[in-house]
Amino acid sequence: MIYITRKIDFCASHRLFNPAFTDEQNQAIFGPCNNPNGHGHNYTLEVTIKGELNPETGMVLNFRFLKDLIKNEIAEKIDHKNLNLDVPFLAGSIPTVENMAIKIWEILEEKIDHARLHEIKIYESDRNCVTYRGKSK
Amino acid sequence: MIYITRKIDFCASHRLFNPAFTDEQNQAIFGPCNNPNGHGHNYTLEVTIKGELNPETGMVLNFRFLKDLIKNEIAEKIDHKNLNLDVPFLAGSIPTVENMAIKIWEILEEKIDHARLHEIKIYESDRNCVTYRGKSK
Amino acid sequence: MIYITRKIDFCASHRLFNPAFTDEQNQAIFGPCNNPNGHGHNYTLEVTIKGELNPETGMVLNFRFLKDLIKNEIAEKIDHKNLNLDVPFLAGSIPTVENMAIKIWEILEEKIDHARLHEIKIYESDRNCVTYRGKSK
Amino acid sequence: MIYITRKIDFCASHRLFNPAFTDEQNQAIFGPCNNPNGHGHNYTLEVTIKGELNPETGMVLNFRFLKDLIKNEIAEKIDHKNLNLDVPFLAGSIPTVENMAIKIWEILEEKIDHARLHEIKIYESDRNCVTYRGKSK
Amino acid sequence: MIYITRKIDFCASHRLFNPAFTDEQNQAIFGPCNNPNGHGHNYTLEVTIKGELNPETGMVLNFRFLKDLIKNEIAEKIDHKNLNLDVPFLAGSIPTVENMAIKIWEILEEKIDHARLHEIKIYESDRNCVTYRGKSK
Amino acid sequence: MIYITRKIDFCASHRLFNPAFTDEQNQAIFGPCNNPNGHGHNYTLEVTIKGELNPETGMVLNFRFLKDLIKNEIAEKIDHKNLNLDVPFLAGSIPTVENMAIKIWEILEEKIDHARLHEIKIYESDRNCVTYRGKSK
Repeated sequence: MIYITRKIDFCASHRLFNPAFTDEQNQAIFGPCNNPNGHGHNYTLEVTIKGELNPETGMVLNFRFLKDLIKNEIAEKIDHKNLNLDVPFLAGSIPTVENMAIKIWEILEEKIDHARLHEIKIYESDRNCVTYRGKSK
Repeated sequence: MIYITRKIDFCASHRLFNPAFTDEQNQAIFGPCNNPNGHGHNYTLEVTIKGELNPETGMVLNFRFLKDLIKNEIAEKIDHKNLNLDVPFLAGSIPTVENMAIKIWEILEEKIDHARLHEIKIYESDRNCVTYRGKSK
Repeated sequence: MIYITRKIDFCASHRLFNPAFTDEQNQAIFGPCNNPNGHGHNYTLEVTIKGELNPETGMVLNFRFLKDLIKNEIAEKIDHKNLNLDVPFLAGSIPTVENMAIKIWEILEEKIDHARLHEIKIYESDRNCVTYRGKSK
Repeated sequence: MIYITRKIDFCASHRLFNPAFTDEQNQAIFGPCNNPNGHGHNYTLEVTIKGELNPETGMVLNFRFLKDLIKNEIAEKIDHKNLNLDVPFLAGSIPTVENMAIKIWEILEEKIDHARLHEIKIYESDRNCVTYRGKSK
Repeated sequence: MIYITRKIDFCASHRLFNPAFTDEQNQAIFGPCNNPNGHGHNYTLEVTIKGELNPETGMVLNFRFLKDLIKNEIAEKIDHKNLNLDVPFLAGSIPTVENMAIKIWEILEEKIDHARLHEIKIYESDRNCVTYRGKSK
Repeated sequence: MIYITRKIDFCASHRLFNPAFTDEQNQAIFGPCNNPNGHGHNYTLEVTIKGELNPETGMVLNFRFLKDLIKNEIAEKIDHKNLNLDVPFLAGSIPTVENMAIKIWEILEEKIDHARLHEIKIYESDRNCVTYRGKSK
C-alpha cells in the first residue's frame, strides 16, 4: 500500500451557530466564531488516497487526476464562498471543519475507482486542524 | 537604527466591491472576491518599528509593548469580524489589503513614542501580500 | 470518529545528561545537547483528540476547551522555563522530547472527558519530532 | 512505543517516462514531468522509527544516529543528482516519489537494529507527498 | 506608494558550469551544482510592484493581472524545464539564481504600465535566496 | 547590485536581565524572559550580502563561501550554547536579539572582501524578529 496526499488552499467565510439555540447559547458555545456578520479563513485541505503501485507508471494514481478531482469537486464549490449560504453540499450543516471534512469525504469517496480514499484533513488555521478517515475508523 | 518586527494572525471575511460601480464592473474588476455573500482569509500582519538601541535594556522597544499595542488597537477590532460591516476604522473603504495597510499605519503611527513606525505588511494568503511605509516612501 | 488537533509553541531551555553517567559517557551519548550551561528550543506541541461528532454543535470538542486545557495544564508550566530545574512534572526525568511527550500524555489524558486523547507530537526543531500514542500503541 | 521522525531536504532532477511506452503514451501519462531534458525538485524526506524508550537515556534511538544514517545511506547518494542517471538504487525504476519511497524503505529497514522503521514520507513539493509503511500496511 | 508582492513556485533542473572553464575549475567553483547530469530545485519567485493606490478600486494593480503576467511570461517558460537547455531567455547564461533574477526583471519591467517593478526575489531553497532591484539599486 | 541571503538555524538558551537593575526592575522590564534558570529558542539567522555580479560565474559570491563563513564564525560559537555564559562575543551584553544582531554584524563585516554585508536578520520565534543594517542605516 502506498499513500499519496494532495494539498490545496481555499478561502471562505462562515458563521458558526445553530438556529435551534438561543443567541446566548450560540455565543457561549461558538464565541467569536458566532459573529453575526461572519468571519473567514484561508483553509488548507489535504486529501490522502491509498492504493497499490502500478509498476508500469511507478504511481498509485496520477497526481494530476487527484489535483483535478479536488479542484473540480471541492475547490470550485467552496473557494471564495460563504460556507453558510453559497455551498450546496454544506446546506443545513453548521460549517465547522468537522462537518466540512465529513461532507468532503462523502463527495470524494465515490469518485475514486482504482484506489481508496484514506483521509481528509482540514486546517482552519496553523493552530487548528481536523482529520476524518470515514465511518469505521 | 534597529528594526523590530512583530507578526500576528487574524481571520476575517470581506467582499470587494465599489457601490459606485455596476454589478458588471464589480465582477470584472474584483472577480471571485466580489462574491455577494463574502469570503474570508487568515491574514498575517507584520508591524515593523525602527529606533535606537537602549543600552540599558538591549532593546529598541519592548516586544511585549508592541504585542499588546497590536492586539489592543488592531487585532481585537478585526479578528473574527466582517471587514465590510464590523470594523469602524474601515467604514467607507473597500476592504482590500492595500486599504487595510494604510488604515493600520494611521492608527499605529500616532501610538508609538520612543521609536518610529517603519512598515506595515499584510499577507492575505501565502501568495499575495502588500507593504506600506507611509506617505513619503 | 473525528480527530481534532491543536498546536501551540513554547520556548524552554534544557541540558541532556544522566547524573548516573560519567562526563565522558554523557558527552558521547548526548553530544552538544550536554552543554553544561544548557541550550534551548522553540518547541511545537500538537495535541490530537478523537471522538464522536456532536450533531448539535458540529464539533467533537470545543477548540477553545482544548486551547485552554493545553495552555493551563502545559504551556504555563513549561513556556520560558528551564526544563531541568523549573518544571515539576519533569523532575527526575532527562528532558528529552520523548520523556516530555510521555509526561504530557499522562497529564492530559485524565483531563479529557467526552473524547479520548489520541496523540502527543512534539517538534524540537523543524528537523526532529517525537510522537506518542499511549502505552498500548 | 515512541515514534521519532527526522526530516532532511535534498534536491535532484528527474524525467518521468517508461521506455516501453511510445512518446505519445509518455506525454499523456506523465505530462510536463515527461519533459525530455528533465526538471527538478527540492524534496523533503521524513523517516519515522518506532521503538521502546531507553530509560537510561530518555531516547528511543539517538537522533544523531538517525541523522547520520539518512545522510550516509540516502542524502549523499541522491542530493544534487539526476535520479534517472546517477543513483544506483533507482536504476531501472521510474523515479516517481512512490518508487523512491519504496527503495529508501528497503535500504533503511535493514540498517536499524534496536528499533523498527515505521514510515517513509517524501514531499516532492508543498502540494504533493507520498507515504510508505512497508509491504504489509 | 504601496508595494504588492505575488509569489509563485516552479520546479526546474540545471547544471552550473562555464564552458570556458576546465572541468577542474568548474568543479572547484560550482561543486555539487556542477554534477554533469544536472540536479533540480523547487524555486520560489516573488515579484514586487510599487505604485499609487487607485481610490476607486482600493488597489495598486489587480493581483489577478500580476498573477497572469507572471504565469504567462515566466512560469510557463521555466516550470518543469531544464534551465540549461529549454529556456530561451536563459540561453547563453549560467543558470544561477542571480542570472535568473536579472533576466526575469528585464522581461517583466517592460510589461508593467501603471506601476513600476520594484524587486525580484528567487529562493532556490529555504536556505538560499537572491534579490534584484534593477541596475541602479 | 545583487543581494544574496543565506539562512541558518541554531538553538540556544538565555536569560534577559541587567545586573545593574533590581529584581523587581528586571521582572518588570523582561517579564518571563527574566526566568532565573533561563529559557531558550530555535533562532533563525539570515545574512544578506550585496555586490556586483561576476559574469564568469554568474554569482556575486559563492553560496558555499557564505555558508561556511556563517557556520565557522557564528553557528559553531552559539549553537547549543547558553548565550549568557558560553559565547565570548556576547560577554557583557544582555543577549537580546537586538544585541546579537549588532555583534554578528561586527564579526561578519570584516570577513567579507569582494562584496559588502547588507543586513543581519534574527528571528527569535515565528512572531518576533530584528533587523540591523549597520550604524548608518
